[in-house]
Amino acid sequence: MRPSSREEFLRLDAEDPLGPVRQHFDLPAQLIYLDGNSLGAMPREARNRLADVMSQWAHGLISSWNDAGWADAPTRVGGKIARLIGADPAEVVMGDNTSVNLYKALNAAVSLRRGGAILTDEQNFPTDLYVAEAVAKRWEVELRRVPRNELGEAVQHGVSVVTATHVDYRTGHMLDMRELTKAAHDAGALFVWDLCHSAGAVPIDMNGADVDLAVGCTYKFLNGGPGAPAYVFTARRFDGELTNPIPGWFGHDHPFDFDSGYKPAPDARRFLTGTPAILSVAALEAAIDLWLTIDMALVRSKSLVLADLLIDQVRRQCDGFGLELASPEEPALRGSQVSFRHPNAYGLVRALAEVGVVGDHRPPDIARFGLTPLYTRYVDMWDAAEKMSEVLRRGTHLAPRFAIKTGVP
Amino acid sequence: MRPSSREEFLRLDAEDPLGPVRQHFDLPAQLIYLDGNSLGAMPREARNRLADVMSQWAHGLISSWNDAGWADAPTRVGGKIARLIGADPAEVVMGDNTSVNLYKALNAAVSLRRGGAILTDEQNFPTDLYVAEAVAKRWEVELRRVPRNELGEAVQHGVSVVTATHVDYRTGHMLDMRELTKAAHDAGALFVWDLCHSAGAVPIDMNGADVDLAVGCTYKFLNGGPGAPAYVFTARRFDGELTNPIPGWFGHDHPFDFDSGYKPAPDARRFLTGTPAILSVAALEAAIDLWLTIDMALVRSKSLVLADLLIDQVRRQCDGFGLELASPEEPALRGSQVSFRHPNAYGLVRALAEVGVVGDHRPPDIARFGLTPLYTRYVDMWDAAEKMSEVLRRGTHLAPRFAIKTGVP
Repeated sequence: MRPSSREEFLRLDAEDPLGPVRQHFDLPAQLIYLDGNSLGAMPREARNRLADVMSQWAHGLISSWNDAGWADAPTRVGGKIARLIGADPAEVVMGDNTSVNLYKALNAAVSLRRGGAILTDEQNFPTDLYVAEAVAKRWEVELRRVPRNELGEAVQHGVSVVTATHVDYRTGHMLDMRELTKAAHDAGALFVWDLCHSAGAVPIDMNGADVDLAVGCTYKFLNGGPGAPAYVFTARRFDGELTNPIPGWFGHDHPFDFDSGYKPAPDARRFLTGTPAILSVAALEAAIDLWLTIDMALVRSKSLVLADLLIDQVRRQCDGFGLELASPEEPALRGSQVSFRHPNAYGLVRALAEVGVVGDHRPPDIARFGLTPLYTRYVDMWDAAEKMSEVLRRGTHLAPRFAIKTGVP
Repeated sequence: MRPSSREEFLRLDAEDPLGPVRQHFDLPAQLIYLDGNSLGAMPREARNRLADVMSQWAHGLISSWNDAGWADAPTRVGGKIARLIGADPAEVVMGDNTSVNLYKALNAAVSLRRGGAILTDEQNFPTDLYVAEAVAKRWEVELRRVPRNELGEAVQHGVSVVTATHVDYRTGHMLDMRELTKAAHDAGALFVWDLCHSAGAVPIDMNGADVDLAVGCTYKFLNGGPGAPAYVFTARRFDGELTNPIPGWFGHDHPFDFDSGYKPAPDARRFLTGTPAILSVAALEAAIDLWLTIDMALVRSKSLVLADLLIDQVRRQCDGFGLELASPEEPALRGSQVSFRHPNAYGLVRALAEVGVVGDHRPPDIARFGLTPLYTRYVDMWDAAEKMSEVLRRGTHLAPRFAIKTGVP
């Protein structure tokens, strides 16, 4: 039975084993923040870590590269991220941003399995499409774009490498990672997964799903901070075989030998390139350390209940206002967000922000609400639906100030 | 006449127009820090900017991408860096690290001028060599490595693109940027400069020297913080012509349209790829804002005097201990560092660090001392030479604890 009053929602929060985690975040008290799938909230510990690293810079200066562990950060933090995604520590390195890492991973995959097409979701995140297009052009192979639900079928026809985002950024639709990876393998292809909307959102298991390569960002569900460094996963079975197209000293087997010949590290470390952005790393590591104390099964089960309650409440309270669920009805096919289509999605999101409910608009007609169980409360679902109903009834979302400004048809 | 007593060195500091700038840095009081060419000191203002950006993250959350100017950071900070290097604001963007940017710039240059060899300094910074090698392989052209002083001659023989570091990281030897760029142009080649040891070290003028493309880091002389984002310069005459091999949404003409087709921005902005590391940007911008208040001519003249005094004092005080100047004798050929060769350079640098003089060792036999006129004092030259003399006389640098550990022949 779903709760049916605000009091019952509050009771769910009182009983929530993840409830106490919220206090680890610095969040405006009155805000209902449903955009942690775009930028995660700030773990309070991040301020302490930043203060530490600023002191290391000011007072330790160059010696902090060794003494404060800066030089090891890409493998140390990578190893911690590995524990969150079911990988071996040597399989994950932290650095660069997702786009650059996807470029590296996709190039490496295509250069290992040359000849066939690169296959991708036609609605993949734009930057993933740009990178895939560039890599296809570079290797003079076809880039084939198909609907997400046709990837499993399409991989069987002359494809060398598939790349897709596990959880779609607009709808939250989640692909079956294990099944699709297997389909790719059965067809002799490699799969490069983009985990941007997966890590910290849903349980993922790189080795359990026999994943080849993957990349992901850390500033969404992982709460690493704006533009926090990304990561690359490469399975151990490819050790020594993959080529980083952007070789750099941090990926050299002995970076501080200043060797004029490139000798790549044997494992995922070869996917490092240049010097990591240490201040950004400090906040990220605080966020990852918090994640390492969390039971992901609890996160998933709370996320599913949050989604169910939000969908249910919106249907009850906003009936007749043209909202249509854009996310899959089936919970198992959803990441940790709920999206609705609405002809005035942009105005709806803007009007909601004015009354303290922060979601996100994705062109042309998606209103997207991220569910981040570490700091999102059950009662937020009740309140968000109520605010949405108010906005729609008053027609605030139709106000001229919310006329769309740029590039949306 | 050179000063010849510690009092006279102190008098130089008292009269130094750059003397007051030191107070803008948080530096250990007793330390003589001569490694600002590896990691620049921390501008005090960086702490304030970090605190600001942490509040923007905690309280502004996703809206800070627009409201706090995060989304514009790559072009805003790039435009500020442009003013330091004699470029137009639209010619410089900030992002990624130097290695990734060199990869982009070198690829773009080679794809524009295909066919001939890539020419480089055989002693270029290792990561630059790794990148050049990868790019040569990708375009199936020869990578030709010659001594730095032969670049001007070598460019005349079937070369399409030259890449070199303007100021050598070991010796501080500075190439003639204007003359070599012209030599490249006369031979129909493009020149991609690495400015890592130039920006903030010596006056540079991208447009005055008719430079094609350049990249540089910001954590050395520019004091941007450990691993602070790097930058790319592309001359306006190439607008619309250059191809970023790693296309990403931040380089799209309208990033937030989420367009599934890549339409690159017309100018240097197309060299952006993914999301910038905003926390690291905050400290960097504080450092650049300080630089924008500084007269670079004063910096260069002080740097030359510092170098002259250090060389002179070391010669006077350390005569007979096997030190040999590795930097050019001629001041006009030097960047902002002084390097000595010594059979026990590693031990010397380590022993100096124990007595509060921080320099740097570069394999196999270079002891390197960076001169950063914003916070280095004239008296530091006197004191550093004295400490060096003490170390050498006592033989501390030969202590077993300074036996070299890794990879040096």
